[in-house]
Amino acid sequence: MPRPETSGTPTSSAAGTRLDPWLGTYAERTQGMRASEIRALFAVANRPEVVSLAGGMPFLDGLPLDQLSQVAASVVAQRGLQALQYGSGQGDEQLREQILEVMALEMIAAHPDDVVVTTGSQQALDLVTRVFIDPGDVVVAEAPSYVGALGVFRAYQADVVHVAIDEHGLVPAALEETLASLAAAGRRTKFLYTVPNFHNPAGVSLALERRPQVLEIARRYGVLVLEDNPYGLLGFDRDPWPALRSYDDDGVIYLGSFSKTFAPGYRIGWAVAPHAVREKLVLASESAILCPSNASQIAISSYLATCDWRSQIKSYRELYRERRDAMIGALSEHLPEATWTVPDGGFYTWVRLPEGLDARDMLPRAVTARVAYVPGTAFYYDGSGSDHMRLSFCYPTPERIREGVRRLAGVVTGERELVELFGTAGAESDDEVASPAPDLP
Amino acid sequence: MPRPETSGTPTSSAAGTRLDPWLGTYAERTQGMRASEIRALFAVANRPEVVSLAGGMPFLDGLPLDQLSQVAASVVAQRGLQALQYGSGQGDEQLREQILEVMALEMIAAHPDDVVVTTGSQQALDLVTRVFIDPGDVVVAEAPSYVGALGVFRAYQADVVHVAIDEHGLVPAALEETLASLAAAGRRTKFLYTVPNFHNPAGVSLALERRPQVLEIARRYGVLVLEDNPYGLLGFDRDPWPALRSYDDDGVIYLGSFSKTFAPGYRIGWAVAPHAVREKLVLASESAILCPSNASQIAISSYLATCDWRSQIKSYRELYRERRDAMIGALSEHLPEATWTVPDGGFYTWVRLPEGLDARDMLPRAVTARVAYVPGTAFYYDGSGSDHMRLSFCYPTPERIREGVRRLAGVVTGERELVELFGTAGAESDDEVASPAPDLP
Repeated sequence: MPRPETSGTPTSSAAGTRLDPWLGTYAERTQGMRASEIRALFAVANRPEVVSLAGGMPFLDGLPLDQLSQVAASVVAQRGLQALQYGSGQGDEQLREQILEVMALEMIAAHPDDVVVTTGSQQALDLVTRVFIDPGDVVVAEAPSYVGALGVFRAYQADVVHVAIDEHGLVPAALEETLASLAAAGRRTKFLYTVPNFHNPAGVSLALERRPQVLEIARRYGVLVLEDNPYGLLGFDRDPWPALRSYDDDGVIYLGSFSKTFAPGYRIGWAVAPHAVREKLVLASESAILCPSNASQIAISSYLATCDWRSQIKSYRELYRERRDAMIGALSEHLPEATWTVPDGGFYTWVRLPEGLDARDMLPRAVTARVAYVPGTAFYYDGSGSDHMRLSFCYPTPERIREGVRRLAGVVTGERELVELFGTAGAESDDEVASPAPDLP
Repeated sequence: MPRPETSGTPTSSAAGTRLDPWLGTYAERTQGMRASEIRALFAVANRPEVVSLAGGMPFLDGLPLDQLSQVAASVVAQRGLQALQYGSGQGDEQLREQILEVMALEMIAAHPDDVVVTTGSQQALDLVTRVFIDPGDVVVAEAPSYVGALGVFRAYQADVVHVAIDEHGLVPAALEETLASLAAAGRRTKFLYTVPNFHNPAGVSLALERRPQVLEIARRYGVLVLEDNPYGLLGFDRDPWPALRSYDDDGVIYLGSFSKTFAPGYRIGWAVAPHAVREKLVLASESAILCPSNASQIAISSYLATCDWRSQIKSYRELYRERRDAMIGALSEHLPEATWTVPDGGFYTWVRLPEGLDARDMLPRAVTARVAYVPGTAFYYDGSGSDHMRLSFCYPTPERIREGVRRLAGVVTGERELVELFGTAGAESDDEVASPAPDLP
């Protein structure tokens, strides 16, 4: 099977229009890998004149850069031969001990040996899926669910079954019903993927009284719980609630991250797992990357040791609360015909559009009107969610948030007029899960 | 299928003896994941009294830490909001341009858009395998081959078929024969994995005249070439040879790394791939880690821009040449009954033991005698290679290298006496591919 001859010069290889001589040789899992059309729009949406309510980038301008610069310098000057060298596949032991202090805020009691440091918690998601999922296995996830997790599940050819949530998070009765019907159908459900705090994209949290209920149901069906918790410390009006992991050492894999409570640029997250699972995760991570960056780990470790990280989290909480208020206020003022969740932490609100509007069809017009969001379809495995959009309030200033919502309201008004005239505002959406873009964490 | 109840306290979960309640739920690919017994030995081998000729850690003591500390400080002070933020999935554009300058030393002409930055080139290995390999697909690789690549191929359930090498690298006739017989058997060979320069573990380089021959054979059978080149700039007596990629833009994926030419602690490597493949690699990387670390990328970019990286490579070449000389001299003096390759670059020599000795069986006794190496079996998919060992000369000083080889010679002498007395020195090896440990890159 000789491959077709293609001519190529170094510069011409940047063009996107050439035939792919390797088209027939990709793995089956690669067939579903494609850049969504949404991503092309977001390239436009990154222009400064567009108010992006789409991204999940934290707002870092308040970080003490002078102090962090000194930390970075001393990491290399004082511990350079370690920071610049290969390290342990499981991660730096001192950092793993400090991670225990962070998790103690959510009532987690663990041992440093239970922790695996990863290249962002995205890598932990990848490793857990790699270790547990055969093609066709079922992952149960909230409806809607984090787009980046859905992308990982798709990459490992899992089948995702969504379970309803309400304003108190995952609905235990719906979970029970789903697991029962999957069991009755003889399906292998490997784990429940959940974001219990300040959910991405829904903005809700799993009620305290539901936490033991969810764990009890999962345990009864032999289903592991994958608790993804990047936002748990970012509550606006309350201290953190106990993590699911704090109730159950053996039935929960917990994922944490410094990306939202400190900064994403070092790409440091972690998993806490039952012992035997933790061993597999380390072996899988060594295969994937050999080891996480010592330079990054020691920088974060030094930050935790020498800076007031608890105050930094407090200042993030205040910053994002103010932006949440701007977002909710602007929605009330400009988009009263929509409905939305009112998050008490995190980065996102989940907006339901007026009857008949399709968030995905509307997106090109919104970008033309210089405002961007993520259509709800990105957060479902089955292409549903077109009546919703995720609005993020983490990155733009309150003024820009208000301006963005104003622009969005203008687009919605125009769409409603089209719907009233023609019965529909545009083409039907097809079902596609966007692969996660780095600016959509 | 309720899982068995297990009691667990946070501290007890560090113990390795508990039952694994999730034993029945792992993916098929996870069944083969296990820590090799060799790794337990290496935990002992890391003690300071042991001379380790096993690891592949570069020797970093000569790096200009004061200057690098200033680089690290200015990265955060001057570009902190970018360095600490999420970045592009493909990697920082400026760094990708600088990577072209590095690759120009090996005659590669490419475009920044052809480059994907990864978390070490190990991640690039993982991504390429993820994109191309379905379970049962064939990867053709040198005999022996890099242990960390074999671990990745195993993780994706590939079948590795080894092809003979000699002192001039991969043997074209053997490659042709292997590809022909695989094609005749109807097997899907996805790519040829090769380390053409200063091979790990064999220490040999693919002869210049063989390079176009290998590419022509691969092209004729429709097989992609995966060129892994961490050591290409570390020749002791000659300038770099043209990379395989320099002959063929469309048939080669090239992997590069800063781990050996600068430092591994930032975990920055890269892949250069044909355009359509590069797109898949970026999507796969976004699924795996969202994006590589901006902090690491900008640190490397600033190092390349402000430090004399070419001189650093020159000083590494001199350092490792001196150690190679110490290693080869000591082997000639103390182990004349063995044979070995004489590498003219890189980190390793590949030693064939005297008849009847088994490198794997001998390892515990070597560690007891305070010297460590990697048995040849680690570098084969099929458990062969027990008559070889990899000795690395990158990390210990010349004095320690000589002392290590002296100790090793004592162990070999003892083994030969056992063989003469009993016909064998110990138990037969079983076939096991060690998963890559971070200290074995």
